[in-house]
Amino acid sequence: MPYEFRLRRTIEFVETDMAGIMHFSNFFRLMEATEAAFFRTLGLSIFPENPVNSVGWPRVHAECDFRSPLRFEDDVEIQLLVREKGEKSLSYTFIFRKLSDGSNREVARGGIVTACVIHDAESGKMKAVPLPRHVSELIQTAPKELLA
Amino acid sequence: MPYEFRLRRTIEFVETDMAGIMHFSNFFRLMEATEAAFFRTLGLSIFPENPVNSVGWPRVHAECDFRSPLRFEDDVEIQLLVREKGEKSLSYTFIFRKLSDGSNREVARGGIVTACVIHDAESGKMKAVPLPRHVSELIQTAPKELLA
Amino acid sequence: MPYEFRLRRTIEFVETDMAGIMHFSNFFRLMEATEAAFFRTLGLSIFPENPVNSVGWPRVHAECDFRSPLRFEDDVEIQLLVREKGEKSLSYTFIFRKLSDGSNREVARGGIVTACVIHDAESGKMKAVPLPRHVSELIQTAPKELLA
Amino acid sequence: MPYEFRLRRTIEFVETDMAGIMHFSNFFRLMEATEAAFFRTLGLSIFPENPVNSVGWPRVHAECDFRSPLRFEDDVEIQLLVREKGEKSLSYTFIFRKLSDGSNREVARGGIVTACVIHDAESGKMKAVPLPRHVSELIQTAPKELLA
Repeated sequence: MPYEFRLRRTIEFVETDMAGIMHFSNFFRLMEATEAAFFRTLGLSIFPENPVNSVGWPRVHAECDFRSPLRFEDDVEIQLLVREKGEKSLSYTFIFRKLSDGSNREVARGGIVTACVIHDAESGKMKAVPLPRHVSELIQTAPKELLA
Repeated sequence: MPYEFRLRRTIEFVETDMAGIMHFSNFFRLMEATEAAFFRTLGLSIFPENPVNSVGWPRVHAECDFRSPLRFEDDVEIQLLVREKGEKSLSYTFIFRKLSDGSNREVARGGIVTACVIHDAESGKMKAVPLPRHVSELIQTAPKELLA
Repeated sequence: MPYEFRLRRTIEFVETDMAGIMHFSNFFRLMEATEAAFFRTLGLSIFPENPVNSVGWPRVHAECDFRSPLRFEDDVEIQLLVREKGEKSLSYTFIFRKLSDGSNREVARGGIVTACVIHDAESGKMKAVPLPRHVSELIQTAPKELLA
Repeated sequence: MPYEFRLRRTIEFVETDMAGIMHFSNFFRLMEATEAAFFRTLGLSIFPENPVNSVGWPRVHAECDFRSPLRFEDDVEIQLLVREKGEKSLSYTFIFRKLSDGSNREVARGGIVTACVIHDAESGKMKAVPLPRHVSELIQTAPKELLA
C-alpha cells in the first residue's frame, strides 16, 4: 500500500518574486500539486467530477519551514509522505529537495492536514465523514523513520 | 447610465517577479477585479450566488499592451470603460495609470470580451444568451472620445 | 509603539477554486499583504527599493489553521499581531474575520516567522542580522491576551 | 533551426476558479512556461542568471482567444510557434489543445510579443536592442501554413 510519492518540477518564472526567489506561497501550491498527482496514481482525484456522490478534501491546516530558497529554473523534487491516516482526515508531510545543483539537499519541509467531507444536502454545509473504504485501503501511513 | 469605473490598487509583493516588476499575467487579474467592483456598484455580480438562475460571464478574449512596468508598492488606477454592449456580450477597455510618482501616465491598456451565458440544463453546456434587461438597462457604451 | 494592524479585503474571483471557496494558498498571500501595509504605516517597506543598504525579510516559517471557508465577494478583515520580536526575526499572528455576514467570526488564524537579513557581499548569500534600531524602535510585541 | 515547441501540462486544482474551469489568466502563465521550456531546449533562458551582461525579454503585448474551457486534471498541449522574428522583438503564437478526451481539439489560441532589451547603466532603464546573433541564429519564423 502506498505511503509515498515524488513529483519533479522546474520552477517557473511567474513563481519568482522581486527578491529573485520562489515566493513562499508557491510551496503550498506545489504541495497540493504533489498530493493531486499522488491521488491520480491511486486512481483517485482530490476533487472528483461528481462531488455530490464523493468525498471532498478541504484543508484544515497547512505549514512550511523554509530553509533555503528556490530560484527560476531550479529542478526540485517534492516528496509526499502520509504522516497520519486519521478516521476522518489525512495528514501529509512534504519534503522539497533541490536537484538542480546536484546537491539533492532539503530546502523546505511542510505539511497539510485535510479533512474528508461530504456535502450535506440538508444543511448545505460540509460534514466530516470517515475515509471511504476504497480510499482507506489504498493509503498507508509512512514508516516513522522516513518522517524523522 | 454608467459606462465607466475606476479602481485603485497598490501593487503587492507577490505580484512581482524576479525582473523586479509586476508579472504581466497580473494585469489580467486586475482587469477582472475592476470589472467585479464595477458590477458591485450596479448591484450585480460577475458570478452570482445562484448561477443556475442567473447569467454567467465567461471570457472569450483578453489582451493587453504593456508600455511601462509597475513595481511593488506602486499605486495604480485601473479605469474600466464599456467599449461595446453586444447583444450577447460585453467588451471592456481597461486603462492602467500609475499614480505613485504623480505622473498619472498610462502604463498599460487592455481589454476583455465576455459572453453572456446561461447553463443549459439539457446539454450540460454553456449557451450564449442576450443580456438580461436589468443588466442591459444598467450599462451603457462609453463615448468614443474616451476610448481613443 | 504599534503591535497591531488591520487590513480589509474583498475576496476576488481569481482567488476562488472549483470548490467554490478561496484557495488555501491565498490566505498566505493575504497575510503578506497585511504585513506590507503594516510596514507602510510605519514608513517602512518589506522590500526596500535599495535592498543593498537595507534589510530583507525572507520567510522561515508560515502556517495557517482553516476553520471556515471564504467565498467570492466576502469582506474579510485580517488582523496582524506582532507575536514575537526576536533579536534577528519577527513573528506575526494573523486572524481572519469574516465581515460580510455581520458575524465577524474568526475563519482562519495563521502565522509567519520572518528573518531579518542583509545581502552579504562577500559570500553572495543572505545573512541574518539584528533588527535595525529604527525598525526595532517602531515595533512592539502584542499583549499576550490578544494572542490567546 | 527551431520555430516550434510543444509542452504538455495537467491542469492543477489551484488553476481553477469557482466556475469550475481554469481561470483565464492562467492561459498566459502557461504561454510563458512554454516559452521558457522552448528557450531551455535552445540552451537559452528567458531570464539569464546575470541579466547585466545578457538580454531580457519584457512583454509588450499579450492576447488570447478562449474557445472552450479547460478543467481540473485536463491534459493539455501548448504549441509555441515563432510568428515573427523582429529586429528587436520576438512574437509567438500559442495553440492550446485538449488531449484528455482524445479530441486534440484547439481550446484556445494566444500570442505574446516580447522585446529584446538590455539594462542601460546610464539611464537605469531598459533599452531595446537587436536580437543577439546567438539567439537570432537559433530561432526561425514558423512556416505561414502552421500559423493560419
